[in-house]
Amino acid sequence: MTIKFDNVYINETGTVSGPYEGNGPIGKYLDLCHDDLYFGEDNWEQAEVKLIKEAIDVLLRKSQVDLTLIDAFIGGDLLNQITPSNYAMSSFNKSFIGIYAACSTATLGLILGGSLVEGGFLNKVITFTSSHNMAAEKQYRYPTEYGGPKPKTTTFTATGGASALLSKEKSGIKLESGTIGAVVDSGSKDVFNMGAAMAKAAADTIYKHLKDTGRSIDYYDLVLTGDLGIYGKEILKEYMASEYNIKLGKYNDTGVMLYDLDSQPVYAGASGPACAPLVVYGYIFDKMRKGKYKRVLLAATGALMSPTMVNHKLMIPSVCHAVSLEVIS
Amino acid sequence: MTIKFDNVYINETGTVSGPYEGNGPIGKYLDLCHDDLYFGEDNWEQAEVKLIKEAIDVLLRKSQVDLTLIDAFIGGDLLNQITPSNYAMSSFNKSFIGIYAACSTATLGLILGGSLVEGGFLNKVITFTSSHNMAAEKQYRYPTEYGGPKPKTTTFTATGGASALLSKEKSGIKLESGTIGAVVDSGSKDVFNMGAAMAKAAADTIYKHLKDTGRSIDYYDLVLTGDLGIYGKEILKEYMASEYNIKLGKYNDTGVMLYDLDSQPVYAGASGPACAPLVVYGYIFDKMRKGKYKRVLLAATGALMSPTMVNHKLMIPSVCHAVSLEVIS
Repeated sequence: MTIKFDNVYINETGTVSGPYEGNGPIGKYLDLCHDDLYFGEDNWEQAEVKLIKEAIDVLLRKSQVDLTLIDAFIGGDLLNQITPSNYAMSSFNKSFIGIYAACSTATLGLILGGSLVEGGFLNKVITFTSSHNMAAEKQYRYPTEYGGPKPKTTTFTATGGASALLSKEKSGIKLESGTIGAVVDSGSKDVFNMGAAMAKAAADTIYKHLKDTGRSIDYYDLVLTGDLGIYGKEILKEYMASEYNIKLGKYNDTGVMLYDLDSQPVYAGASGPACAPLVVYGYIFDKMRKGKYKRVLLAATGALMSPTMVNHKLMIPSVCHAVSLEVIS
Repeated sequence: MTIKFDNVYINETGTVSGPYEGNGPIGKYLDLCHDDLYFGEDNWEQAEVKLIKEAIDVLLRKSQVDLTLIDAFIGGDLLNQITPSNYAMSSFNKSFIGIYAACSTATLGLILGGSLVEGGFLNKVITFTSSHNMAAEKQYRYPTEYGGPKPKTTTFTATGGASALLSKEKSGIKLESGTIGAVVDSGSKDVFNMGAAMAKAAADTIYKHLKDTGRSIDYYDLVLTGDLGIYGKEILKEYMASEYNIKLGKYNDTGVMLYDLDSQPVYAGASGPACAPLVVYGYIFDKMRKGKYKRVLLAATGALMSPTMVNHKLMIPSVCHAVSLEVIS
């Protein structure tokens, strides 16, 4: 299901990160990078709450839009009951739509926000998402202090918060369309190879997006996936070619871009809901404004399992929500 | 933030439950009531997946609408990473918007679905939610086999799945408007008294709904809250009177209505995302069609904590999303 938007723009963004992201190749494009993973809080969960609040505060400051003018927030994260989002929202007294789409949260938020703006229901809406490496490791696997070894296909959950302001005001980047993905049975049960589990969802949504819009893949100057990592990226390229006869040429993966994979200890690359928006709102939007890319398809992917379901030896369901982004002239 | 809908109708619903709900006063109004809490599955989580699938299957059968005509699903539940919803969706190959709003999921789904239909983005959308008593107890507190005693203010998570088909086709019940609630700091830390934690959110959203629509509370033949239970219900009545000078007269709470509180061992009443839609889609819609109620305000409430945040001794954030439902003549 692809929704076309005639009048929706991403007017401003806010990006906040931890030290790994700040020291990576994208760091200099982010609004705020912290040196410490606690962000002055007592625990990882509250640190993630703070990431969200800061990502919103930074956006409001940059856009010079007063909070009273924001009609609603749309957001979510990886933690149980999306508590970082819910606790952060308890400080804002604004209508809140809580969503869960794992690492594809940013694009689902943009599509929902875009629909509510395009439909005339909301004037200004802020979408946000976050992830925190330590909070995610503690919840999904083991506290990192245990020091357990991991296979090289593992991805490294990014620490960051990202927000975007949507309205009909013609400025910044145009949200041209969005494809709401279907949950696919990945057939994979390996939580240490999430890229493999999510590649099928990415292929499904990219294919449907092109079919719905009647476009060829060459319509886009750049196709980006959410966070497949170095192995998942290759799987997607092979799968798109063999299954759909589509050659992913001008293509990259935000999980491969967020860190320096040669020097940083991040296994197969970045993952987490913050990964795609940190790379896109920070780095890609800068390149779009400077004329390097005019049309970008961002296909963010999410792995939708829980530790309980993994313990039941079930496959990992995955999803991909895609948005078409355009520079306005 | 209240959204007005001119052309959105709830064409059909599907309601499936466990034995406690089937044996309660609402049981005879539900589509399907099971005698066993496993529903033929191996564990509580898969039982909840089945509840969702059945609630959708029942709706499709009753409405005689083919699945190919459904544009998207919107849904969520209480479990970590909304896995029952995500695993159920992996069987449907349809665009899916995953939401998290705890026990207010049904009304948030209706508002989002209504907006996407009213805006012309989707023709037919199915919203759904579920909860399973045993799965929720296991995750939030202790497996029920431990037999731990509980205070009488505790609510009992309903076991059920509920779905609603929305479109512009004029049939059934009209979705007249919806108010997207804000997350409030309840000030309460007592997870055994969720009604108290959620009453403040209910008051906040009901007040904003009346203010946004310029209506008095008497506009509605019936005001229903989601699942405050017998104690939370009284707290809300007192709070609305003292804080907003609004007298809740024609008022009830779906948590009080789902079970026979005199004979069933459910403490202060029902809770869980399935509670409000089982009562409303089953019992209330029947009464509306028979002319007993013309205008109903359903204000479903959610407590947005997780066990991790409760262990951090933080307050329970709560939210309430409200929808105005009307019989069409």
